[in-house]
Amino acid sequence: MSFKNVEVKTRANVYHGGKVTSRTIITPEGEMKTLGVMLPGTYRFSTQAPEVMELSQGHCRVKLADQQSWSDYQAGQSFSVPGNSHFEIEVTDLLDYICHFG
Amino acid sequence: MSFKNVEVKTRANVYHGGKVTSRTIITPEGEMKTLGVMLPGTYRFSTQAPEVMELSQGHCRVKLADQQSWSDYQAGQSFSVPGNSHFEIEVTDLLDYICHFG
Repeated sequence: MSFKNVEVKTRANVYHGGKVTSRTIITPEGEMKTLGVMLPGTYRFSTQAPEVMELSQGHCRVKLADQQSWSDYQAGQSFSVPGNSHFEIEVTDLLDYICHFG
Repeated sequence: MSFKNVEVKTRANVYHGGKVTSRTIITPEGEMKTLGVMLPGTYRFSTQAPEVMELSQGHCRVKLADQQSWSDYQAGQSFSVPGNSHFEIEVTDLLDYICHFG
């Protein structure tokens, strides 16, 4: 699986002291995505645009801003986060993800 | 800074328990490169093809197979590793790198 004819920003995005890193790509259609890795841990992220998180490797559980309970997701699955919101994510096995925006 | 019109493999390469991760890209000329992140730590890597490691962020010191002493490198610098060899690298600040092969 790959993205073809994309632009890749060379500088990595670094969050949470390097436990979460990503690379930004821009598709031929002008869509921005990030390809990232989260090491095991619990993190909180805020969104501006809505996001779809597509999981390529690993396992996590997620609690969206309006939810009381956690939902489990693993490689091959996706979850959606509304815009202007936030979510908590607990990564149990190294997470390799594609983040789609908008 | 970016690479344009490249293919990006979606699956991350994971080494040393996730402390080193990278993404593989293929340029329009068919050259493979990896864009990676190394968290602080000391690692040993083996090479097959010769490699040029170009540093985008961070700081490390490197000892090549035939060297007795360590050399320091930081963002904006590169170091070369012969093929069929190995090197030790001590990352002191999160290292964001581009690995050129061949």
